[in-house]
Amino acid sequence: MTTPAEFFQTHAELLDQAVRATTTRDYWSAFPESPSKSVYGETAAGEGESAFQALLGRPFPIEVPGAVGSVATERSPWGPELGVSYPKADPLALVAAARAATSAWRAVGPEGRAGVAAEIIKRINARSFELAHAVQHTTGQAFVMAFQAGGPHAQDRALEAVAYALAATRSIPATTEWSKPQRGGDPLRLSKTSTVVGRGVSLVIGCTTFPTWNSYPGLFASLVTGNPVIVKPHPGAVLPLAITVQICREVLAEAGQNPDLVTLAAEEPGDGIAATLATHPDVRIVDFTGSSEFGNWLEANARQAVVYTEKAGLNTVVVDSTDDYKGLLRNLSFSLSLYSGQMCTTPQNILVPASGIETDAGHRSVEEFGADLAGALDKLLGDPARAAGTLGAIVNDGVLARLTEAAGASGVIHPTTEVAGEHPGATIRTPVVISLDAADDKTYTREWFGPVSFVITTESTEHSLRILVETVRAHGALTALVHSNRPEILSAAREAALDAGVHLAENLTGGVFVNQTAAFSDLHGSGANPAATASLSDDHFVTGRFFTLQSRHHV
Amino acid sequence: MTTPAEFFQTHAELLDQAVRATTTRDYWSAFPESPSKSVYGETAAGEGESAFQALLGRPFPIEVPGAVGSVATERSPWGPELGVSYPKADPLALVAAARAATSAWRAVGPEGRAGVAAEIIKRINARSFELAHAVQHTTGQAFVMAFQAGGPHAQDRALEAVAYALAATRSIPATTEWSKPQRGGDPLRLSKTSTVVGRGVSLVIGCTTFPTWNSYPGLFASLVTGNPVIVKPHPGAVLPLAITVQICREVLAEAGQNPDLVTLAAEEPGDGIAATLATHPDVRIVDFTGSSEFGNWLEANARQAVVYTEKAGLNTVVVDSTDDYKGLLRNLSFSLSLYSGQMCTTPQNILVPASGIETDAGHRSVEEFGADLAGALDKLLGDPARAAGTLGAIVNDGVLARLTEAAGASGVIHPTTEVAGEHPGATIRTPVVISLDAADDKTYTREWFGPVSFVITTESTEHSLRILVETVRAHGALTALVHSNRPEILSAAREAALDAGVHLAENLTGGVFVNQTAAFSDLHGSGANPAATASLSDDHFVTGRFFTLQSRHHV
Repeated sequence: MTTPAEFFQTHAELLDQAVRATTTRDYWSAFPESPSKSVYGETAAGEGESAFQALLGRPFPIEVPGAVGSVATERSPWGPELGVSYPKADPLALVAAARAATSAWRAVGPEGRAGVAAEIIKRINARSFELAHAVQHTTGQAFVMAFQAGGPHAQDRALEAVAYALAATRSIPATTEWSKPQRGGDPLRLSKTSTVVGRGVSLVIGCTTFPTWNSYPGLFASLVTGNPVIVKPHPGAVLPLAITVQICREVLAEAGQNPDLVTLAAEEPGDGIAATLATHPDVRIVDFTGSSEFGNWLEANARQAVVYTEKAGLNTVVVDSTDDYKGLLRNLSFSLSLYSGQMCTTPQNILVPASGIETDAGHRSVEEFGADLAGALDKLLGDPARAAGTLGAIVNDGVLARLTEAAGASGVIHPTTEVAGEHPGATIRTPVVISLDAADDKTYTREWFGPVSFVITTESTEHSLRILVETVRAHGALTALVHSNRPEILSAAREAALDAGVHLAENLTGGVFVNQTAAFSDLHGSGANPAATASLSDDHFVTGRFFTLQSRHHV
Repeated sequence: MTTPAEFFQTHAELLDQAVRATTTRDYWSAFPESPSKSVYGETAAGEGESAFQALLGRPFPIEVPGAVGSVATERSPWGPELGVSYPKADPLALVAAARAATSAWRAVGPEGRAGVAAEIIKRINARSFELAHAVQHTTGQAFVMAFQAGGPHAQDRALEAVAYALAATRSIPATTEWSKPQRGGDPLRLSKTSTVVGRGVSLVIGCTTFPTWNSYPGLFASLVTGNPVIVKPHPGAVLPLAITVQICREVLAEAGQNPDLVTLAAEEPGDGIAATLATHPDVRIVDFTGSSEFGNWLEANARQAVVYTEKAGLNTVVVDSTDDYKGLLRNLSFSLSLYSGQMCTTPQNILVPASGIETDAGHRSVEEFGADLAGALDKLLGDPARAAGTLGAIVNDGVLARLTEAAGASGVIHPTTEVAGEHPGATIRTPVVISLDAADDKTYTREWFGPVSFVITTESTEHSLRILVETVRAHGALTALVHSNRPEILSAAREAALDAGVHLAENLTGGVFVNQTAAFSDLHGSGANPAATASLSDDHFVTGRFFTLQSRHHV
């Protein structure tokens, strides 16, 4: 056994650095993103793949309190059979087990809880290759992306949430001495104790595209603020979270805690246990990533809980002008292609003024811009092996259906094509880009999650900015991007983004993409528009998860 | 004109001290609580009274956008005619005016907003005597209490909220440089800007008993986080908030801001504009102090807003044993008497084991304890002038009706009596104390706001603690108090308070009372039980009031 206090000692420096990084917010990362031998060791890649292979075709080794029977719900978008089964959860049993584990966890205090969490994340990091395969074969991401986004980037986001939770729960000192001067007498003196008490059982509902990256912040924020956590993965992407929960339980048990502080809630598709759990009176915190429909339902119905959602929206690009047209096209075509646009941050609506744009390569009409963008996509995705590495595989039939619907519309600028040969069992498609007019808002105010984007002709850049504000205020967005070399337009774009409540990227032409955010520096989601009620991560993301209770007595 | 930045410079040291005090939480106060000449000057008391008198019998000088007609709704619980009228608010006009003022306020930034807020609070402090009269003659508090709780203590709570808001809105730096090392190349470099954006129009709904103390935290937290604020006073206690809003508007105008950032929403009783405003789509923040009934309604119906409520509950005392029986009786009888129990923190349920209690004055049965408590009340309130100074006046007919109902019940230990002679126009009553059994939960699980308390016989102290947990979890409480000289009972009481989600005071026998909390040290409310959804003040109280929006571009 290693006590939580000992885990805190072990990781104190890492936690200090992480807390400092949340306040400086310049570049900092705890977990190297490169899956290279020089970083993770000569044998890590092979061992990780073997560990993953050893999990296939059998029951996943994890204890789930009160489980009845088992479920096997995953299929790899890349083709291979997975055949992993999980204990099928009984929601009421999970809640009861979570409650039973709570009071000992409360007694551990903020630092011990952060120490345990840091140990969990370090062990997750040590299994990054195994997790990368698990993420790849559930989400359809290409391997390197699965490694980075599903591994070290997710681990950084986890540690970031731990840092915020630790700082917030330490913000009021555990003990204080209060001495109030009295005229003509001894001071009034009190000794005061402040104790952090978790809000209650926490539910984390995972998504199918980023099972770890999107689930870790809520999981670790809740755990460190004193709450037990029930992890409900998407039936299509259980394995990455099952491995995660397994590690959590292993460390918690080693720390002398009840492992039921973190449990896995696997179900058959359609069982609807997320809704059952989210409305249970003892479930007081819900973290959700997924569709706007269910996210809105949770916000409206999980009334006994605080609800942190990350849903969907209309990510928007305003193209006005540029000093680096090639860079713009290269950057934007990559943003549209990465993981086949199956990111909640992928641009959908690209707004271009009817008069065209001024660039370092001369004036380009809307039509020319569309053709140039299509050309950039073709260049990026011309080689099938490289294309597959960028696009990954289509994750499910819903995405494919939207792509097919869009591909049949009029105004196609860049048709979607099949990338064949490399991965026989996988559905790999290039993005479709369609030309629209600003009046076609019925089409572009709908969210087309997947590789579907629109080049939309507007009256002017000012009109583009108005559309940005109106559509994002009404329908939400996680990202916005502006290209302009005119200071007054950049300034207007910043104000528009503030009015819309969306984070803005400006003139990205190099190796930074609008779909990506860096932990400890970039916020993901703002809470200020309908796409999300929270931001990963900031103080607000953690302060609703606990209460501070005081006792006081005379000295 | 003085710019917000200049106001920040002027008050930078005060704000620094206040922010530091929120983190150390030992004794700190910015505003002296003593209404003495040595502190506030020879002439302050007289000038304040004159200023108050000059307000009576005429329209209050304040501009309210879109107001139609006027209202005069106050009567002094002490007797004198007030006759102050206020512009009658049009809720839609207030929301429109608030929205129009927002974007310039956003541009001011956290420090400028905190500077303006600090200037407002300093000017409020300079009018403490005038405000004390206004509080006295709307709430029925005695003058000294009206001065302290309505003046400096409220100002400290205001500054505390400003400090939390300033720290939270500065927590992410306004500008950062991000530089990510790249293997074999130049680092990726971005310059990033973070801007605080208020959530939207903020509504503060005041109460009739502590119009300033309970309204200031929400008012200043919202203002400093970038939101316009509509202040909706209780029709019975408008004047203290009208003066406050007047000062806010004066300073805002001097700072070059639109004074409609803070407006007064006066109404006729029954107009129900609080509900109209609280459910308006543009109202995104609601702060409320008052009845559980309307507070619960707001939580259920103001769905577009974050709702911070401070309602009511069953404040509970567990009496087990004591080393200072006289001190216990003196302290508790004062807590029951102060402002006639018209505090949301006044004890209602006093739990005593059937076997009686051990004290330094020997064993006391439940009956003896009841008689001793009655005796302590009689001693404290024996002199009519002193009694009136402690009890204040009954604020309204609702309190009087509950007192009358309780006085007619069986088991009266201490009858309520009229305190006559000193203030002919005022209703002044001593508290009623009634003996109950633990089985009489229908009576004691109802809230009897006002001078009504119960001495409840339980099976044992353990039983008392179980009742504490069960009743507070179900019905809420703002305070709990335990008297015991047994360490194992104190320890069990602390755990019970954590389980119940209520702050605990232990063995108060001197000059600190369970009904009082000190800004910058004690939290008021916890959010962890049904009596309140927030705590005054902590990080959670401010972080939901704003968003942080980022923009980033290559360097």
